[in-house]
Amino acid sequence: MASKVSSPAVAGSQNNLRQNDLGERIIALAARLAQWSETPDGLTCTYLTPAHRAVAGELRDLMRAAGMSAEIDGVGNVVGRYAAADPAAKALILGSHYDTVLNAGNYDGRLGILAGLVAVEELNRTGRRLPFHVDVIGFAEEEGVRFSAHYIGSSAIAGRFDMRMLQRRDAAGQSVADAIHKAGFDPETIPSLARRPQDLAGYLEVHIEQGPVLLQEGLPLGIVTSIAGTVRYSVTVAGQAGHAGTVPMGLRRDAAAAAAEVVLYVERRCAAAPTLVGTVGRLSVPGGAINVIPGRCELSLDIRAADDATRDAAAADVLAEIDAIARRRKVTIDVKEIQRGAAAPCSPALQAQLAAALQRAGIEPRYLPSGAGHDAVTFSGVTDIGMLFVRCGNGGISHSPLETITAADADIAVRVLLDLLVNFPASG
Amino acid sequence: MASKVSSPAVAGSQNNLRQNDLGERIIALAARLAQWSETPDGLTCTYLTPAHRAVAGELRDLMRAAGMSAEIDGVGNVVGRYAAADPAAKALILGSHYDTVLNAGNYDGRLGILAGLVAVEELNRTGRRLPFHVDVIGFAEEEGVRFSAHYIGSSAIAGRFDMRMLQRRDAAGQSVADAIHKAGFDPETIPSLARRPQDLAGYLEVHIEQGPVLLQEGLPLGIVTSIAGTVRYSVTVAGQAGHAGTVPMGLRRDAAAAAAEVVLYVERRCAAAPTLVGTVGRLSVPGGAINVIPGRCELSLDIRAADDATRDAAAADVLAEIDAIARRRKVTIDVKEIQRGAAAPCSPALQAQLAAALQRAGIEPRYLPSGAGHDAVTFSGVTDIGMLFVRCGNGGISHSPLETITAADADIAVRVLLDLLVNFPASG
Repeated sequence: MASKVSSPAVAGSQNNLRQNDLGERIIALAARLAQWSETPDGLTCTYLTPAHRAVAGELRDLMRAAGMSAEIDGVGNVVGRYAAADPAAKALILGSHYDTVLNAGNYDGRLGILAGLVAVEELNRTGRRLPFHVDVIGFAEEEGVRFSAHYIGSSAIAGRFDMRMLQRRDAAGQSVADAIHKAGFDPETIPSLARRPQDLAGYLEVHIEQGPVLLQEGLPLGIVTSIAGTVRYSVTVAGQAGHAGTVPMGLRRDAAAAAAEVVLYVERRCAAAPTLVGTVGRLSVPGGAINVIPGRCELSLDIRAADDATRDAAAADVLAEIDAIARRRKVTIDVKEIQRGAAAPCSPALQAQLAAALQRAGIEPRYLPSGAGHDAVTFSGVTDIGMLFVRCGNGGISHSPLETITAADADIAVRVLLDLLVNFPASG
Repeated sequence: MASKVSSPAVAGSQNNLRQNDLGERIIALAARLAQWSETPDGLTCTYLTPAHRAVAGELRDLMRAAGMSAEIDGVGNVVGRYAAADPAAKALILGSHYDTVLNAGNYDGRLGILAGLVAVEELNRTGRRLPFHVDVIGFAEEEGVRFSAHYIGSSAIAGRFDMRMLQRRDAAGQSVADAIHKAGFDPETIPSLARRPQDLAGYLEVHIEQGPVLLQEGLPLGIVTSIAGTVRYSVTVAGQAGHAGTVPMGLRRDAAAAAAEVVLYVERRCAAAPTLVGTVGRLSVPGGAINVIPGRCELSLDIRAADDATRDAAAADVLAEIDAIARRRKVTIDVKEIQRGAAAPCSPALQAQLAAALQRAGIEPRYLPSGAGHDAVTFSGVTDIGMLFVRCGNGGISHSPLETITAADADIAVRVLLDLLVNFPASG
């Protein structure tokens, strides 16, 4: 084995492998899956479109070729099992999603499925069975693009599918239920897809970091401590419009200036704790004109942290500061909470196993929160969850054709995953 | 005479007048003119539309009834003359515009024409002639709504009409030249409309303040010192878009946060000199999303002051601070100057005459700059210019149906104007 990163548990069986072989296979498979797109240029693959169905078929075939039983379930998840000898054994799920955003990169979601697949290919090639089932699952839907409904795939498996979601409609007016029917599935079967917690040994997801931290620190992998809880607000500032030339500065009630104070306070306050982030992503003066003092300004607010207490403390401070700004500037600021999701902490046991595997590979464990949501969230409270982040290139960009990883990093990720699997306690 | 504000020069002839009679006539005439609108509700009267033509005809008839010769000239200006005995006398122009913005108030522009008209009505009623011509002019176009061309009317009279303006087109594709032809005029005659400086005794414009200063200070009238010079910029901030959950605060290059600093610096810097104002009227994150760190933010910048040096010093500081923000935040900020107009100082002699008339009326002169542009600007350098501001109600709002003045204030304005006229030095 030529790789600088050794994987002792499987090293003995890898004398046929060139350096980065496993990583290069992941890059190649991701490129192969990216050939099916709803658009002639770039990659767009949303829930239950022809491109999406084609990717599902390909994943199923790849899983079968890797020695797994594999089927596409009633919501379009591709579920493969590399079975233990004992049919009653528990299952460790290696999952992520194969749907994409519009004009996506090749790796968001798919890396996690392919890492599980290639790990199983390697187990299968070397004839190694494990004392638990390895379930590699490609979830059908996570991004929420087509139906503004997230986690359709993983919530079904986790037993948390909200049947009201079936009534959501896409831009063409088709409902989720209709789309599922058209694909040849029966929405009535969804409740039967739920796994029982007692049948699960855990849930593990490999995912690109979608951020710049590992890149900045020169590390290929990171261990996720928690998937951030998010709170989102819609904020509207109402001041007093006026003529840009005729209202002295001291008599203004400028909605955009008040909004600017909010933006800078959010930035300052959310820099005050390590896992905390706060973003004003939308900001606009509706109908703004160069010669009119803004009478109205609209903005969005998104605050996240690895733990809910940190997030809520920041949110409370931001709301208090918004009140103070409104009073001081004699403007009205209306704040509506539009979304709130609890943080999903990763299992300390899985974090420890990931850390041990990293250390055996000669990599110092770097713990970091996930600011983005992932399928793992739906399994929080159902079974132990863990996540392994892989370094992104291009400054950490994702949701873009510029999204990239190296074959070397993908290779290390699969080797660490393999090492974790062969060292995973069967009693999970 | 019952008015609290005495106007000594004309008091002897006013024993038939009730208090506010002249002001009430102005309010009534403004309401009469507002009946012609391009819209069924509210007031919209843009250049050379049927409503605009009807208003011109009405103004001409009112002028003739007040003892003036009056004609509509080749660009639609309504030009009335209350002639001096000596045909070779100079003319003092009392002007403003009768076109409006969309969904306008009754007074922006029209007050100045009606104040001149009602003053002449009063001179005519009392049989008083002056040793100079009083030319009351309703300019056809100042707001620039239909053709994005300002000052069409006054620039023709001032001899500053840019013939290229004839090629501007409205939303329907009609050019200014076509519109003038359709109205029965000949654009070729425009150069002949220019007055010779040696024929003019000055230019005086009564206008609503369009701001809150007089209202806040409890004063009916104000003397304009200067019409502000404006410089305008289009500003684009380019940072780095990113996932709102995954990029730590310290690694962000948030375009909206940089823009927010610009907004607050403009506000702070432009509060540092009395006549200076600075406005960010347009502000937006194009395509902003709640979960995306803004990679781009666009804003407008409008800086004005009563003198160009004050304005230019502020603009230079703002541009320097923009550079500093860009460097500190590692973003690119592109600044394009899109408009620059010199300040037009009002004649000290006319200011002094206005002040004397105010003092004779028992009103303390309040000097203030005009942040808005006015027809008077086009006469700057051609003849002495002066402006008298009338207090606005409703917080100083204009360009809105909420724009308002009181009959009492309009009354005082006409009496001060009359007083100025009868005391105006004939040698002008």
